[in-house]
Amino acid sequence: MDIFEALYTTRAMRRVTTEPVSAEIQASIMDAAIRAPSGGNQQNWRFLLVDSPEIKAALGPLYREAMVFLWDHVYKPQLDAAIAAPEAPESIQFLKVQSSAQWLADHFEEVPLYLFPFAQNDTSGGSIYPAVWSAMLAARAHGIGSCLTMVLALHGPQILEVLEVPADEGWNMAGCVSFGHPIGRWGVAVRQPVDEVTFRNTWGSHAGLSVVEPRWPRP
Amino acid sequence: MDIFEALYTTRAMRRVTTEPVSAEIQASIMDAAIRAPSGGNQQNWRFLLVDSPEIKAALGPLYREAMVFLWDHVYKPQLDAAIAAPEAPESIQFLKVQSSAQWLADHFEEVPLYLFPFAQNDTSGGSIYPAVWSAMLAARAHGIGSCLTMVLALHGPQILEVLEVPADEGWNMAGCVSFGHPIGRWGVAVRQPVDEVTFRNTWGSHAGLSVVEPRWPRP
Repeated sequence: MDIFEALYTTRAMRRVTTEPVSAEIQASIMDAAIRAPSGGNQQNWRFLLVDSPEIKAALGPLYREAMVFLWDHVYKPQLDAAIAAPEAPESIQFLKVQSSAQWLADHFEEVPLYLFPFAQNDTSGGSIYPAVWSAMLAARAHGIGSCLTMVLALHGPQILEVLEVPADEGWNMAGCVSFGHPIGRWGVAVRQPVDEVTFRNTWGSHAGLSVVEPRWPRP
Repeated sequence: MDIFEALYTTRAMRRVTTEPVSAEIQASIMDAAIRAPSGGNQQNWRFLLVDSPEIKAALGPLYREAMVFLWDHVYKPQLDAAIAAPEAPESIQFLKVQSSAQWLADHFEEVPLYLFPFAQNDTSGGSIYPAVWSAMLAARAHGIGSCLTMVLALHGPQILEVLEVPADEGWNMAGCVSFGHPIGRWGVAVRQPVDEVTFRNTWGSHAGLSVVEPRWPRP
């Protein structure tokens, strides 16, 4: 697969089938992940793959609890606004994400594979998320959908206990990635364009860039 | 370029020529970056490209000061150990990184392009580093070397002032990425193997994965 196809079409793909992700694909995903850079090339990372029904059964209720909290508190203004004006473009977009996130909550135990990435003494995330994103891009190349979620961080200590992560070694859980064979279709996600979010030299100055032909779909 | 070639060979490439990175390539890099996922698809990000000699001249001394601090304090144990036993494999590896990082310090103003990524109210990094890493992978596909460095974070407030970042909007600087036409060669970086850093279901349990044939170089 072309690198630009992977970069443009690897979007949050939460809805997946129960079909397992093969050991060969898992190995390929992880071998791509560990090629990513880390601060000072320290590789202070560990990756925990979860496919056991027992562990998923222990995590699922925590995930659902956290989702309820998110809708009731963190995302309440957006959710209320979206429900009040469901035809507005930003409402359509928000409700799409909400419905997809809720799908994962409702089907947590049926998703075949999760990856929990950990970084030691890294508070910025710069030494773990390149590896996480590489895993997701490699999965995409194998036709495997994925989604990075931070929802479980709300129950951090309980999750670490379930996963038997040593409490005294400074391991930060960098979210959780779901993996599986997608139910939906791959596509380029809508984004705020480059020239609205990019500056040049000083904050607020126009970057002077125009994307004449996106690299994907191929011209 | 094949996705696996990009994932396996995009390593820290600090040594670059003074040749500018074309506007077309910059646009392509940024258009790939903004396709990355972010929490709740909020895209609370801004990207500041720096190529002005004046701004680089203001940042270079801060970068060099921070490097001195790093060698004298943060990385002092490793540096002392490496100097004491320069033939040890971990010393060779460390001194290689050290020399490359020092090269960037010595040539900061000559590097043609920097990218400063910012995320609003994101403390985990999970909503900005996928975009940053996508920018670096897209650059790789164009033959452009890059390196993510957190060194300037040591002088955070001064950097934000130089870049005129509004102080009261909660923008976190997610490091700094250098870009340019590489002097060195692309290659697969040595890493601790998958089965030493990956567990299954609970911490410390063997993942049961074996990478029989890495996806790159192509079998």
